[in-house]
Amino acid sequence: MSSATLIETRFLSAERAAAMIREHGLANCIRAIADHIASDFLRWETFDKSARVANHSPDGVIELMPIANAELYAFKYVNGHPRNHLQGLSTVMAFGVLADVATGTPLLVSELTLTTALRTAAMSALAARTLAQPDARSMAIIGNGAQSEFQALAFHSLLDIDTFHLYDTDPLASAKLLRNLQAMGLQAKVFADTRAAVAGVDIVTTVTADKTNAVILTADMLRPGMHVNAVGGDCPGKTELHVDVLLAGRVFVEYEPQTRIEGDIQQMPADFAVTELWQVLSGQAPGRQHGDDITVFDSVGFALEDFSALRFMRDLADQLKVQDRLSLIPALADPKDLFACLHAPAAIPSRPASRRIAFV
Amino acid sequence: MSSATLIETRFLSAERAAAMIREHGLANCIRAIADHIASDFLRWETFDKSARVANHSPDGVIELMPIANAELYAFKYVNGHPRNHLQGLSTVMAFGVLADVATGTPLLVSELTLTTALRTAAMSALAARTLAQPDARSMAIIGNGAQSEFQALAFHSLLDIDTFHLYDTDPLASAKLLRNLQAMGLQAKVFADTRAAVAGVDIVTTVTADKTNAVILTADMLRPGMHVNAVGGDCPGKTELHVDVLLAGRVFVEYEPQTRIEGDIQQMPADFAVTELWQVLSGQAPGRQHGDDITVFDSVGFALEDFSALRFMRDLADQLKVQDRLSLIPALADPKDLFACLHAPAAIPSRPASRRIAFV
Repeated sequence: MSSATLIETRFLSAERAAAMIREHGLANCIRAIADHIASDFLRWETFDKSARVANHSPDGVIELMPIANAELYAFKYVNGHPRNHLQGLSTVMAFGVLADVATGTPLLVSELTLTTALRTAAMSALAARTLAQPDARSMAIIGNGAQSEFQALAFHSLLDIDTFHLYDTDPLASAKLLRNLQAMGLQAKVFADTRAAVAGVDIVTTVTADKTNAVILTADMLRPGMHVNAVGGDCPGKTELHVDVLLAGRVFVEYEPQTRIEGDIQQMPADFAVTELWQVLSGQAPGRQHGDDITVFDSVGFALEDFSALRFMRDLADQLKVQDRLSLIPALADPKDLFACLHAPAAIPSRPASRRIAFV
Repeated sequence: MSSATLIETRFLSAERAAAMIREHGLANCIRAIADHIASDFLRWETFDKSARVANHSPDGVIELMPIANAELYAFKYVNGHPRNHLQGLSTVMAFGVLADVATGTPLLVSELTLTTALRTAAMSALAARTLAQPDARSMAIIGNGAQSEFQALAFHSLLDIDTFHLYDTDPLASAKLLRNLQAMGLQAKVFADTRAAVAGVDIVTTVTADKTNAVILTADMLRPGMHVNAVGGDCPGKTELHVDVLLAGRVFVEYEPQTRIEGDIQQMPADFAVTELWQVLSGQAPGRQHGDDITVFDSVGFALEDFSALRFMRDLADQLKVQDRLSLIPALADPKDLFACLHAPAAIPSRPASRRIAFV
């Protein structure tokens, strides 16, 4: 037998991913991820899709989100624990993997907490660019937590939104968002409640974290032509929109079978009409038909968006010559002799002095 | 806000896991994993269980296997690509994660290629100890690939099996297994075909890799009192036993909903009677009732076994004071301010000089 086949899995730690995004520029990354999502959505029917697998507990949910086409397989691990911030932890933490469909070899393990924030914002802005009025310039952001800066920057980058109205039940969260937006040179103002924040804006983004059937937005807050970007209602029992908001507009979704379970439309009968966004992107279904239409993007986050984001991060790592690797798979001289790897230490090119691997 | 909450995820590379198993002893590890599986199977009803999620392609399959109880969540990524050995790759490669149900924090990322071989063998031997004749001393192993040494050692350790009959369509695989078993001091002999190998033995283990509806074992090869440990038939379109073998014996399974899809019983009608093994272990259903019974363990590999194996590896890492860690989750001073991690490099305790992480 020949010498052992060494399988190296590329690794992007949380710190490495942050450094890559800083180096390439956050707005550039969001725009590139939106482009990757758009191109993957345009080949929608080539993907092996399924609703994500969720394990629910009293405190939150842990989900796995797999997807594949003929070449690449991807999955994301992601949690949602709304009370995590009380102990200094993020509500949403994530990591993911790209693998080779032909052999099953894992190609990349990457943080996805930060990357998910970018891809969610990129998805929201891509949908809004497709559905909102072309002259939209103002947006309310209801829910000013970890995702909110990314939403603002994505809408500024992709749609030229330049005025942001902020509201959160936690004033410290709004103050944090205001500070971060002003540091980016964006116009923003904090309002006293949702009704005040949404008055007069062109787009409303709801991105709240409570794991409850909340009513963040009611129909009387809508105005003709508004686009609603509903991001926070994303698992069973977690909604943000009043039923009348869904009835007032045309509703667009990512992947209908998953959104029926997880989205705001979980409140609606199974035959409530929705349109999958890829159909609008590909010209197979109309988006906004009249200036006065109310459009609702009932976003829950679909595995294909993570697939797109992981593709982007892999390519960016190539471009930036990132070399970090993990040894997840045993190196075997004879693949039928797994037992041999117990006989003696495998030959390893190099050994790190340190034990904590962040690589930046 | 206080300083950033540093989340460290324990990491066990392929080489680290091999070194830990060498240090603790392979037979000790297999016995301990069998004990962990038995104790987890005895609290079967406390687990949130689901059939695994599979993405099939012409060359193989990639699967995710999640499971959780009130404290711990686990999942395994595993592929099955029967032609991988032609390019020097393993048929089965795997890794997995343990996470905290209360917060969703990933606690451990571990190789599971080697560990899966141990847990599969531990599961097989645990089932056989429960179902086979108590005086069984000989076993045929049909399929002499990567899993076969582990099967032999597990049956030797848990059931005192001391005679092994070997057969594989690839003579080099049998020669490799013979060499490895003899090096462990076990009696083994290679036979010319399956019929010759199974003649007169007490237990037959089938652990072949072809992704086809094969007929490895037919009813005329059975003898009264035999236990059949069918390991290789484990996904749709991949079976090893003739239907008459299933009709000749009582069939035991891990998790019925998954085995109906993936096991040899995929060939049988939906009402074909099977018994879940946990019911036998807990005394709620009979195992072998007569010396002449033929018992069949239609094993496909269930997520709970990986949960048990990951628990064992985590505890062993503690015991052996393994310190390896990954940085998968961003360290944030304010969990609602994910954006902040893009401003400046996070504080990292130490930086490895090397880029390939194997830790042994």
